[in-house]
Amino acid sequence: MTDKRNIYLKMKTLEEAKNILFEAFPDFDQLLAENIDVADAVNRVLSEPVYAKMSSPNYHAAAMDGIAVAAELTFGAAETNPTILVVGKDAHYINTGHVMLENTNAVIMIENINVPDEQQQDEEQVEIIAPTFPWQNVRRMGEDIVATELVFPTNHKITPYSLGALISAGVFQVNVRKKPHVFIQPTGSELVDHRQLAQDGLIPGQVLDSNSHMLGKLVDACGGYYYKNKIVKDKFELIAKPIKDAAAGDYDMIFISGGSSAGSKDFTRQIISELGEVLIHGVTMMPGKPVIVGKINEKPIFGIPGYPVSAIIAFEQLVRPLINQMLHQPDIPDHEIEVTPTKKIPSKLGLEEFLRVKLGNVGGRIVATPLPRGAGCITSFTEADGIIRIPNHIEGIAENKPTFATLLRPLPEIKNTIVAVGSHDNTMDVLADLLRTKSSRVSLSSSHVGSMGGLMAIKKGLTHIAGTHLLNPDDGSYNISYIQKYLPDTQVKLVHLVQREQGLIVAKNNPKNIKNIEDINRKEVSFINRQSGSGTRVLLDFKLSQMGLNPVDINGYLNEEFTHMAVAVAVLSGTADAGLGIYAAAKALNLDFIPVVTESYDLVIPANVFDTKNIALLLEIIKSTEFKSRVKQLGGYHTKNTGKIIWSS
Amino acid sequence: MTDKRNIYLKMKTLEEAKNILFEAFPDFDQLLAENIDVADAVNRVLSEPVYAKMSSPNYHAAAMDGIAVAAELTFGAAETNPTILVVGKDAHYINTGHVMLENTNAVIMIENINVPDEQQQDEEQVEIIAPTFPWQNVRRMGEDIVATELVFPTNHKITPYSLGALISAGVFQVNVRKKPHVFIQPTGSELVDHRQLAQDGLIPGQVLDSNSHMLGKLVDACGGYYYKNKIVKDKFELIAKPIKDAAAGDYDMIFISGGSSAGSKDFTRQIISELGEVLIHGVTMMPGKPVIVGKINEKPIFGIPGYPVSAIIAFEQLVRPLINQMLHQPDIPDHEIEVTPTKKIPSKLGLEEFLRVKLGNVGGRIVATPLPRGAGCITSFTEADGIIRIPNHIEGIAENKPTFATLLRPLPEIKNTIVAVGSHDNTMDVLADLLRTKSSRVSLSSSHVGSMGGLMAIKKGLTHIAGTHLLNPDDGSYNISYIQKYLPDTQVKLVHLVQREQGLIVAKNNPKNIKNIEDINRKEVSFINRQSGSGTRVLLDFKLSQMGLNPVDINGYLNEEFTHMAVAVAVLSGTADAGLGIYAAAKALNLDFIPVVTESYDLVIPANVFDTKNIALLLEIIKSTEFKSRVKQLGGYHTKNTGKIIWSS
Repeated sequence: MTDKRNIYLKMKTLEEAKNILFEAFPDFDQLLAENIDVADAVNRVLSEPVYAKMSSPNYHAAAMDGIAVAAELTFGAAETNPTILVVGKDAHYINTGHVMLENTNAVIMIENINVPDEQQQDEEQVEIIAPTFPWQNVRRMGEDIVATELVFPTNHKITPYSLGALISAGVFQVNVRKKPHVFIQPTGSELVDHRQLAQDGLIPGQVLDSNSHMLGKLVDACGGYYYKNKIVKDKFELIAKPIKDAAAGDYDMIFISGGSSAGSKDFTRQIISELGEVLIHGVTMMPGKPVIVGKINEKPIFGIPGYPVSAIIAFEQLVRPLINQMLHQPDIPDHEIEVTPTKKIPSKLGLEEFLRVKLGNVGGRIVATPLPRGAGCITSFTEADGIIRIPNHIEGIAENKPTFATLLRPLPEIKNTIVAVGSHDNTMDVLADLLRTKSSRVSLSSSHVGSMGGLMAIKKGLTHIAGTHLLNPDDGSYNISYIQKYLPDTQVKLVHLVQREQGLIVAKNNPKNIKNIEDINRKEVSFINRQSGSGTRVLLDFKLSQMGLNPVDINGYLNEEFTHMAVAVAVLSGTADAGLGIYAAAKALNLDFIPVVTESYDLVIPANVFDTKNIALLLEIIKSTEFKSRVKQLGGYHTKNTGKIIWSS
Repeated sequence: MTDKRNIYLKMKTLEEAKNILFEAFPDFDQLLAENIDVADAVNRVLSEPVYAKMSSPNYHAAAMDGIAVAAELTFGAAETNPTILVVGKDAHYINTGHVMLENTNAVIMIENINVPDEQQQDEEQVEIIAPTFPWQNVRRMGEDIVATELVFPTNHKITPYSLGALISAGVFQVNVRKKPHVFIQPTGSELVDHRQLAQDGLIPGQVLDSNSHMLGKLVDACGGYYYKNKIVKDKFELIAKPIKDAAAGDYDMIFISGGSSAGSKDFTRQIISELGEVLIHGVTMMPGKPVIVGKINEKPIFGIPGYPVSAIIAFEQLVRPLINQMLHQPDIPDHEIEVTPTKKIPSKLGLEEFLRVKLGNVGGRIVATPLPRGAGCITSFTEADGIIRIPNHIEGIAENKPTFATLLRPLPEIKNTIVAVGSHDNTMDVLADLLRTKSSRVSLSSSHVGSMGGLMAIKKGLTHIAGTHLLNPDDGSYNISYIQKYLPDTQVKLVHLVQREQGLIVAKNNPKNIKNIEDINRKEVSFINRQSGSGTRVLLDFKLSQMGLNPVDINGYLNEEFTHMAVAVAVLSGTADAGLGIYAAAKALNLDFIPVVTESYDLVIPANVFDTKNIALLLEIIKSTEFKSRVKQLGGYHTKNTGKIIWSS
């Protein structure tokens, strides 16, 4: 084995990396222009200034329907002293947009013309009772655009509105910068194209190639276009060949997707250094650290890390700015707003972290709940509303200390998001879907921190609603005693959502023959637990103490998951033999289920948000037949009192 | 003639109009779904919730390159007490992404493994000096996505990032809402398609059809697609036929572009009421008042006004919200910021006005300079940075009174705009173009209010620079005496831009044989003047008084234009025989020019903005050979001292 410790070049900070990048590719005037019809030019960038070829209007035009006159003829007109004009001689009927006749310089609106009852036989007359002034109701030639004047400067990006100005200015063809053409090479022996997947699906070790599709569409979105080559395996020659050809061909930029790290099957760096030059390997950012920037035949080549979030960050932080520069477009900084983190966020000194967060407008401030930080979690990006950039010189951000987040969704949408922090339940997904179906305005964003975490979030004003199912062992009641104890100073209402079945989730056909809670105490049974503070953990601990069992004796008691589904997956994948969770999770993954208890899952809603429009809509949906019937399809739920306010403080 | 006074239906406010619209077309579930490959689904809208078909990862996968072990074997490892593992038995080399072997549950990074120098002959060994814990460096099955969980709800709009999550979740085909299909019928006997224009160009009375192109691209941009029919003339049957066919055909929406007003050639309303029902004719907004909304075969049909800005406002205010509703997308309100108008903005009671404004960040506030208000001026939209909506219950906005504007460009771009308010000169266009060529970051935005207007804008802190060419008749100097008089309390620097030739602009071949300023006093010569406060006006008035001529005797003295180019157009179009202006304007329109004076055109720059990065860039460009050579090509300019600071206060 070779020593892999010093495999990266000296790592660069993101700022250093950008400087190296822009120094290596200072300007892209090899990006030639092409001449296209103006009607096809929306979103394209002018490669030269555009001057008007015609004036607009191109002639003096009537701006109203009426009669065209020489204004001077009307100067004396008054109600008591009407001016009579002879049609065809002094006055000429004219419609909006028509050419003004010679010797006329004003239009009198049709509404302001009287037609006298008695007419001379040989001529038609009209009567004017107010003067007009020169050029009134006339669009003069060049009023909007004067021929030869600049319509748009070089590097203007053409909008649909621009089309109107260009065509009016007689500009029918425009020279625009060619779109940067990107060659994308997906690599990885494990990768499979979803369009070529065999009928029986993935086998363990195979991974669907999603990054190259995502990267291609990101290229599209910033004004380039791409060719995606077929997947190649992790072999030097197999990757080097298409890269060499692409670098010699008609491309402006190359991506090698995957293999950018320092593993024994990572060839990107070696290939770039043999075919050209490696400029950067490793940037002190997270995710995205193993990114590579190189140059082959004067063309930029990027080694894009294989983890999806790393790929996104590498693209957004290095590729997009370069494409913008190629197209001479401003690299607009993201829209940043002040947010309050819902918990302490530790971070590593020396690494700039791009932390994905959910955002919500609670109690007049925007609160930020961190999402999973792993680079492999694409959902941490698709569920994110914003990103908190934690600079590399600090060690984290304190809870409740305002900081900044860049937005991934428009602020008005974020402000219309109902924030749910608390226990996890599958019916929350149904609620989220029905909300988006019923209203294009409102959405639901759930974070899973367990029932107690939900109550704490309510207490701290960090959430609109909290799902909770906390059993009071003394009387078998749910939630109310906990609210009384932990939220003595907060006015809340408790809305019943569902009764649900909790039990042991075990593998299909129950191979370890587990019959009840006592059986998880058996030595050969491995258990997967829920985090402390979750209602399910409270339930487990209560049951164990009821039976006089010692948690320490349970094999796996210390292994925690945060959701019912994660517990079910642990069982499905053989990580554990049993876990406590809801029936719906077992059913979803086709696992066996041993019922333990039927419990109440309720929503805690602070009184000061209860009467808002969004919560009203949520409650309406909760009470709907559609919600109840979709919940029943999940299995293990009862909806008898769903939507009832069962308690108020 | 029929009486046209009551031709509109009772006009609606915009709010009423929207209510009528959404009541008439409450929901569009006739917009069917289609099933497409996920890789083609970016920007499309899900018509149903999407649940994960696979977990991601789909197996327990190594998250690092290293060795896979059972964590339990390493629990005692320490620097002083290394654990020795046998490769192939206790430890297995593994690369990132690979399947974890049975009975292993952690990966030790390759960097943390020592290979002892002395090896047993029959087995390879590795040495571990720190314990690992279960599932360290392992991506567990379902860590990102659990099969059966909701990936995206109904009505989610798919982004490039979403692709990553969908493919990873095993979702390869998605059901998305069909794009709304819009039929666009351009109407107007005067209209010409730019692609069918004869070699010799437009004849007076012909107008290029730009609206239907613009409308089509606006439909594209909000997620629909369009068919643009060929232009038809203003004849009832010619328009009615394709509309009837479209309403019976496979379209979701119809536009009749043009003919929505109440003129004798406006047929839109009549056609809609014969084929279906007119719901709205006339909205109390400006521009856009004559918009029509109707219904044929349950499909929405819009009569879109013919003036381009009216067309845009009608689209943005009524059509876009409806398309958004069809696609169940939120109609995000525009981004609004506080701005300070640079002058009083009167407006009509009872009309909601959409006033286009230029915006700039001057002295720590965003100042708003109104653009021309005519609905025919498409450039008032393409040059606008924002829109001030003046509600219909107020009569205007006072100067300096903060109000709100919605943004048409991103705020960071607006903040990087150099604001120029002052005299008009054609070299400002060259500057604007070179700025955009040299920097994708900075742009120049000019408003033409004359030299005195420019000085006043400096005084009030409304502009970064002001072009000025004010002659001091006493000593023949330019600008300095005016600055001393009008800006006694403002520290400024005066930068010389160009010397330029001012003179009389007259028709080609000078048919009225005008030789000098005295000749404009002749009765048969009509003159076009510049507005008072402009340097050119100051020059004229000085010349007239030198010669003892009385302004009242000059035919056309009261007709004012705001730019040199507008004066030149007035001459070109025969509106006037002569006007005072710069050589470049005469040359641009191929007119004759009689030199009167060579004058200094300078830039006034307040000291507190002089040292900013953007002004430094501007000055660098002004001093460049490229700027000077492009200015010389315009004709009538001298650049000997261009860029010199000629005076400071």
